[in-house]
Amino acid sequence: MAVDLKPKNAQELLAIEGVDLFVGQAGVKKANHNDVTLLVLRPETQVAGVFTQNRFCAAPVRVCQELLPSSDIRALVVNTGNANAGTGADGLMRARAVCQAVASHVGCAEKQVLPFSTGVILEPLPYEKIAAVIPNVQPVHWDVAAAAIMTTDTVAKSGSRQIDIDGVSIKITGMSKGSGMIHPNMATMLGFVATDAAIAKEVLQVLVKEVADETFNCISVDGDTSTNDSFIIMATGTSALPVITATEGAAYEAIKAALLDLSLELAQAIVRDGEGATKFITVDVQHAKTKAEARLVADAIARSPLVKTAFFASDPNLGRLLCAVGYAGIEDLDVSQVQMWLGDVLVAEKGGRATSYVEEAGAAVMQQSDITVTVDLARGDASGKMYTCDFSYDYVKINAEYRS
Amino acid sequence: MAVDLKPKNAQELLAIEGVDLFVGQAGVKKANHNDVTLLVLRPETQVAGVFTQNRFCAAPVRVCQELLPSSDIRALVVNTGNANAGTGADGLMRARAVCQAVASHVGCAEKQVLPFSTGVILEPLPYEKIAAVIPNVQPVHWDVAAAAIMTTDTVAKSGSRQIDIDGVSIKITGMSKGSGMIHPNMATMLGFVATDAAIAKEVLQVLVKEVADETFNCISVDGDTSTNDSFIIMATGTSALPVITATEGAAYEAIKAALLDLSLELAQAIVRDGEGATKFITVDVQHAKTKAEARLVADAIARSPLVKTAFFASDPNLGRLLCAVGYAGIEDLDVSQVQMWLGDVLVAEKGGRATSYVEEAGAAVMQQSDITVTVDLARGDASGKMYTCDFSYDYVKINAEYRS
Repeated sequence: MAVDLKPKNAQELLAIEGVDLFVGQAGVKKANHNDVTLLVLRPETQVAGVFTQNRFCAAPVRVCQELLPSSDIRALVVNTGNANAGTGADGLMRARAVCQAVASHVGCAEKQVLPFSTGVILEPLPYEKIAAVIPNVQPVHWDVAAAAIMTTDTVAKSGSRQIDIDGVSIKITGMSKGSGMIHPNMATMLGFVATDAAIAKEVLQVLVKEVADETFNCISVDGDTSTNDSFIIMATGTSALPVITATEGAAYEAIKAALLDLSLELAQAIVRDGEGATKFITVDVQHAKTKAEARLVADAIARSPLVKTAFFASDPNLGRLLCAVGYAGIEDLDVSQVQMWLGDVLVAEKGGRATSYVEEAGAAVMQQSDITVTVDLARGDASGKMYTCDFSYDYVKINAEYRS
Repeated sequence: MAVDLKPKNAQELLAIEGVDLFVGQAGVKKANHNDVTLLVLRPETQVAGVFTQNRFCAAPVRVCQELLPSSDIRALVVNTGNANAGTGADGLMRARAVCQAVASHVGCAEKQVLPFSTGVILEPLPYEKIAAVIPNVQPVHWDVAAAAIMTTDTVAKSGSRQIDIDGVSIKITGMSKGSGMIHPNMATMLGFVATDAAIAKEVLQVLVKEVADETFNCISVDGDTSTNDSFIIMATGTSALPVITATEGAAYEAIKAALLDLSLELAQAIVRDGEGATKFITVDVQHAKTKAEARLVADAIARSPLVKTAFFASDPNLGRLLCAVGYAGIEDLDVSQVQMWLGDVLVAEKGGRATSYVEEAGAAVMQQSDITVTVDLARGDASGKMYTCDFSYDYVKINAEYRS
């Protein structure tokens, strides 16, 4: 059901010098299936990340939060099939046991390994199975790794960018997984992006937040925030470009733009592969007083089950869209100034339906698989976007029947 | 599909002296169908209300907000089939035209009439049709009126209470409508409660807020807040009980308890008749630091599509419940202290699944049609409840196909 989304083949993905990928079959949940992915990093790779705000955050998230940002990470290990979330102190012990196994294999300390888990919540992580497979993992390219971190995703999500900064060619490759902000009880969205640029740790920490805020933090499938969400950027520094040491300047802006571009593709891919999705929807809120205000309105529209079922039905149900704007939480909103477009069709103005609007024009836009809703609040100069999908029978089916 | 909900018959509903009810057939959307309801009040009835916070609030809501609280209201007029929302200045004019027609019929001023509309958003209200039927409305009892204010509700919602205060018998009767906090593009929940007690205007204004906060503000079907939501209490003062003039004392507490009890029944009836509902779910959050904090957690659980689809599937998916607690927004929540029960089965403790928990016990609770989820945050003495329903194929069907 994924909306306009195809897996990349190996040739479309650039190797990043300093990042070696491996996969293995631990049989965490299913047999004969790549469910462990290992990323081994050259020494001095800079690593930073952002994580779920969920208070029931998973054990691996806690371990990552303790260690990042860091100039000292040598490996990332990802397992599917079990989220190691809602597992208390025992879960932390099990996450660290996996890290210890990786450390022994790679030849580093346990605290130089970042763990990631995605899968069923509340089940003990079978760490012995994962530890046992580590010595036997096989080298792969990003396309195979992107498939190995999938849970109920239907399409592997990955991509590359190549840019030129001061005459030096810089490569960026990343992968993501997730098919809901939280999956059934298969929790999690994960994103991993690596570049051969050299970026100072403090700069990378700023960058990962800025990039996440415009990409992975702008997607919603069902409004639920998982216990395991993680987004990581790794900078190996294997290119000839001097280290980027400031959060300004041409090199910083160039690498940020490329990271944003790729991360947006990876984040949007999660929505396109959203549970039961048949349409990809961009909500673009303009002329808000603040970015937070723009996000508030975009989020209300993107989360509304009524809006999302209308998109599923290809029904230009303007009332539901206006209603969501109205309850988004802007107390002094002057609705008489609000304008709204479906695609390029003006549908609402002056507190009601646009006088020029005809239902046929709205219905034509709703037939498309990729639709933008634009809201102009006429209050200021800030704007914000959210990316979401429609809400179909299959969403209910997937989530009602997942464990049965 | 309504969950354990039957319409009341006429004998179960007490007449309130000072309130006369009438219905008529204006053909707003369908022919041969009661779609206009008129409540005529004796002079000096005190009326207060609370309304939607939606900024795209409907024209009739604006008129009511201008006029209430009041000692001067003589009539309420309700139409179904058209919400008169998202209709700008023209909508206000049309709402007032309906009030004018009622005023002429009742023999009062336009500003003594409160209008209420529920139905399609963004369509001009056919006020001429409504005005034309007013002279011909027929007297009815509350059961018929409760049916006449329905839109896609499947069961009429009404009820009565009789209490004794200082030896005086006091009657309360009310009705509500709504089958989602917002209906497809049939917006709205409406609630009307009348008592023959005498209650001072200022006291009634406090009372209506206190009652709404524990009843109609505690229900969620889909998390969308309608443009037309209104809850009104009318106190005719026709009983022998002296006027209640303070928000304290035995008489105040007694009438408040009875109003709360009836209003809770009317509010819960909306959830029981929720779109596609097969289960009624009470979320009871205890030992929060503040009531707002308790509500935050209850709301996160009650709104989660993942929790709601799990209830539909009768799947004791504890991970989704804990996950919702985790992202509710309590930043310093110590998850190791949280306990959770499904019915009377302890399911979670110490940051994970309860050691005593067995899946069979959770599965047995999930088979019931009326389920309570209890969360103990172990942080303080405040508590809060939300009432919601599950999320079924029929929710998507009803909302995807409503206009087609």
